[in-house]
Amino acid sequence: MPENKGSVQNFFEDFQLGQVFECPAPRVLTEGDRVAYIALTGDRTPRFCDSHGLVHPLIVFHTVLGQTVRQISLNAQANLGYAEMLWKTPVCVGHEIKTSVRIIGLRENSNRKTGIVYVKTVATNQRDEIVLEYTRWVMVKKNREDVTAYLSAPVVPILADAVAPDLFMSYPPDPFNSKTTGGSFFFEDYAVGERILHIDGMTVNSSDHMSFARLYQNTARVHFDSILTGGKPLVYGGYPLSIGYAQAFNGLENRLGIVAINGGTHSNPVYAGDTLYSFTDVLDRREISARHGVLRLRLVVMKNHQPTELFLIETPDPSTGKKKYDSNVVLDLDYWELMSKQTKR
Amino acid sequence: MPENKGSVQNFFEDFQLGQVFECPAPRVLTEGDRVAYIALTGDRTPRFCDSHGLVHPLIVFHTVLGQTVRQISLNAQANLGYAEMLWKTPVCVGHEIKTSVRIIGLRENSNRKTGIVYVKTVATNQRDEIVLEYTRWVMVKKNREDVTAYLSAPVVPILADAVAPDLFMSYPPDPFNSKTTGGSFFFEDYAVGERILHIDGMTVNSSDHMSFARLYQNTARVHFDSILTGGKPLVYGGYPLSIGYAQAFNGLENRLGIVAINGGTHSNPVYAGDTLYSFTDVLDRREISARHGVLRLRLVVMKNHQPTELFLIETPDPSTGKKKYDSNVVLDLDYWELMSKQTKR
Amino acid sequence: MPENKGSVQNFFEDFQLGQVFECPAPRVLTEGDRVAYIALTGDRTPRFCDSHGLVHPLIVFHTVLGQTVRQISLNAQANLGYAEMLWKTPVCVGHEIKTSVRIIGLRENSNRKTGIVYVKTVATNQRDEIVLEYTRWVMVKKNREDVTAYLSAPVVPILADAVAPDLFMSYPPDPFNSKTTGGSFFFEDYAVGERILHIDGMTVNSSDHMSFARLYQNTARVHFDSILTGGKPLVYGGYPLSIGYAQAFNGLENRLGIVAINGGTHSNPVYAGDTLYSFTDVLDRREISARHGVLRLRLVVMKNHQPTELFLIETPDPSTGKKKYDSNVVLDLDYWELMSKQTKR
Repeated sequence: MPENKGSVQNFFEDFQLGQVFECPAPRVLTEGDRVAYIALTGDRTPRFCDSHGLVHPLIVFHTVLGQTVRQISLNAQANLGYAEMLWKTPVCVGHEIKTSVRIIGLRENSNRKTGIVYVKTVATNQRDEIVLEYTRWVMVKKNREDVTAYLSAPVVPILADAVAPDLFMSYPPDPFNSKTTGGSFFFEDYAVGERILHIDGMTVNSSDHMSFARLYQNTARVHFDSILTGGKPLVYGGYPLSIGYAQAFNGLENRLGIVAINGGTHSNPVYAGDTLYSFTDVLDRREISARHGVLRLRLVVMKNHQPTELFLIETPDPSTGKKKYDSNVVLDLDYWELMSKQTKR
Repeated sequence: MPENKGSVQNFFEDFQLGQVFECPAPRVLTEGDRVAYIALTGDRTPRFCDSHGLVHPLIVFHTVLGQTVRQISLNAQANLGYAEMLWKTPVCVGHEIKTSVRIIGLRENSNRKTGIVYVKTVATNQRDEIVLEYTRWVMVKKNREDVTAYLSAPVVPILADAVAPDLFMSYPPDPFNSKTTGGSFFFEDYAVGERILHIDGMTVNSSDHMSFARLYQNTARVHFDSILTGGKPLVYGGYPLSIGYAQAFNGLENRLGIVAINGGTHSNPVYAGDTLYSFTDVLDRREISARHGVLRLRLVVMKNHQPTELFLIETPDPSTGKKKYDSNVVLDLDYWELMSKQTKR
Repeated sequence: MPENKGSVQNFFEDFQLGQVFECPAPRVLTEGDRVAYIALTGDRTPRFCDSHGLVHPLIVFHTVLGQTVRQISLNAQANLGYAEMLWKTPVCVGHEIKTSVRIIGLRENSNRKTGIVYVKTVATNQRDEIVLEYTRWVMVKKNREDVTAYLSAPVVPILADAVAPDLFMSYPPDPFNSKTTGGSFFFEDYAVGERILHIDGMTVNSSDHMSFARLYQNTARVHFDSILTGGKPLVYGGYPLSIGYAQAFNGLENRLGIVAINGGTHSNPVYAGDTLYSFTDVLDRREISARHGVLRLRLVVMKNHQPTELFLIETPDPSTGKKKYDSNVVLDLDYWELMSKQTKR
């Protein structure tokens, strides 16, 4: 009897520095994807529901992340973080996305049961133009404890704290204004240090989060199997990210789409039945052209707790003194958002 | 610290007679919308699932209603009614819908906590042709009880009891017959006074009704937030309307699409777990061309109770003598339906 | 008062041998259908998510089956089996599917309350090419016990045990390889007698299975009405079939799509809350061209029980000695799968 063909996958000790994987399968993004995303998240960003066929940057992100699950994270214990994420070419309806990954860092944990894999991801379109690239690190289980290749010789890449705005692609003029977006605040109206409390709450249903993960062909078993998870399938971390981003439309109506992610942390798990709320802190602002600016924003998504103007995202742990996320915080995302300028009105 | 940008919205005292709002955001309707509507409602009307790309009139309605929520009904306490609703141009896959509203009536309630806003809604396509128009009235909360502008001087528009058939757009010949629709009853076969009991029941799931409201970018918080609503998010009233219309296919197989709504009342709330049933009373019938007639129909949607031939929609309240909806009735809709004539067979 | 137009449907005694029905309504399949199928099943077969617009054979199957429900199985008590199912022309995005059925067998049951109807189904595209044909048999209720036409003279068609590979349509070369599919096993790597345990589990949610049935306009009431079914709407049998097929990607990554179904049995019911697992036994293998082979596979889908290498699908009933499905087995499907050959690598 041959070995079971159904369970081929990678453990920590299977990865090697410099190793490259092409990630199955090439996926075309269509009008169907635009509609499914809106139905599952409620996103209202005008640029991604009009007739120009532009695909939401977060649809591209979820598609790409889903393509990497099979080779990288089927045995992941935790998705630790993202950095240097940059959208480089707009994706339109009909474009086909292909992804490859390279192992750029490996560090075994001292418990010898897991290790951290640093993965550089590059996604291209049908013309081989890069549409998205980022580095992600995940904690992956080991299959055999006696293999210890990277315990004494860890390799950890140096990653930038933030994506520099001069790396952003250039954006053509856009047709949006207060009348088409419903919002009266433009790039000039936002101040560093300002907090925006988005007013909406969204309760997560089993079918919503599972459909969302299936849509992007993310097959990590913990999201789908109620028996494996003791009745509590874990919500794919990308779902609260997209819900929070959709909620953030209230107060950021003249946004034109996410252009880069500086860093992101899934700080606490989400399960069906949790209700998500979110707020945004304005971290930085840069003019990038006569018509556009970018805001560096911190999107915080919380569960079962409506945030306030004075809410503390992290508080010192009384025993260690180290900063620790509030137990209601499920996502802490640091990103650059493209904004229309007021002068266009 | 600037005011919170995330909570800008209108209360009753913010509206003025004659005020016009353009409603964000223009939305293209696509093949994705046709499929999502079928998956969420089970609608089988042949004209909206074949290869001609026609978009279901109720998809257009939900899209337009959703576009008006941000400016009109985020602070609504109740959606009271519709009148004079008329579809004026067919919408096909790829068309973009843009909506504007005008305040045509304001009446404050004597409790000084709420008022009724009458809104004329006009939706156009990418060629600025009107696709749908209607008047809707909603009860909206006040923010400050001391403002009483419209308590002593209410303005209430005069609305027609029914849309006159000579206002209907003209319809080209259609290819449908018993073989493509599965039904043997045509315009000539329906009698005024006849009741049609549709046989199907549909239990509403949390994910279905929330996805439906999100699909149309309707962001009223009561539909989504389980904490805000004490564990019972309110189902968007448009969902039982579409479920009832889908169920009404049994017995109206040769229908060609809704052409006008004379009036509609959401008489009782629907929550996840409720099972919906429906029936249709034939109110009137008019020949409008050699090939087509219109039926004036009363669609009644009920929850958790299968209707009978003799069911009374409204009964007198014993204490007041006034007519009152049966507590199982969730929707009472008076509309004109376009029907194929038998002579085409 | 005319008879209720909403309840016209066929009982066992209404069917006649040789009777032909055209099944409403013609349905176009679009990009929206490809996306909805992926979101509801998690299917990752590369051929049906790339930019070539090919529609998954199982989407075609569910569409066709749904079209036949109104005339054949609204009064069905059980869907007993399929045979001689053959896909004959590829379906692409934009193609329109039309279905007709012919009654080829009738056998009344001795209880006089039900009978078995054998139905030959033929589906065509907009060019009148046959895209799918199969024979299905269902147990249908009688309306009047005194009618016994087919009790003494049953007609039962003779059906082939398996579809012969020389009937398969010819397949052009395909662009898939290990890099685009993620799998390293090709036609040559599979041995008759081998078992593949697919590793994924999928818990069924109410909204998922109902949306799936609605998507294909399958209106059998038992799938949707929680009151009618005592709180347990029955999952449409096609849903576990598609879930199992999606799970079977793990271990069959170089598959190119199902080409024929030899037989299928829905052996136990599925309800919301059940978790589905699956495995595949390799029954036969045939080379059909220089580039392609076909595998005859037995896909077994189970509920709430993870299969093992030695699991027995059927066991003898201790009282009768007859073979009986294990109570966890919900689907036993015997089909031919098109596979890429290794020599292409």
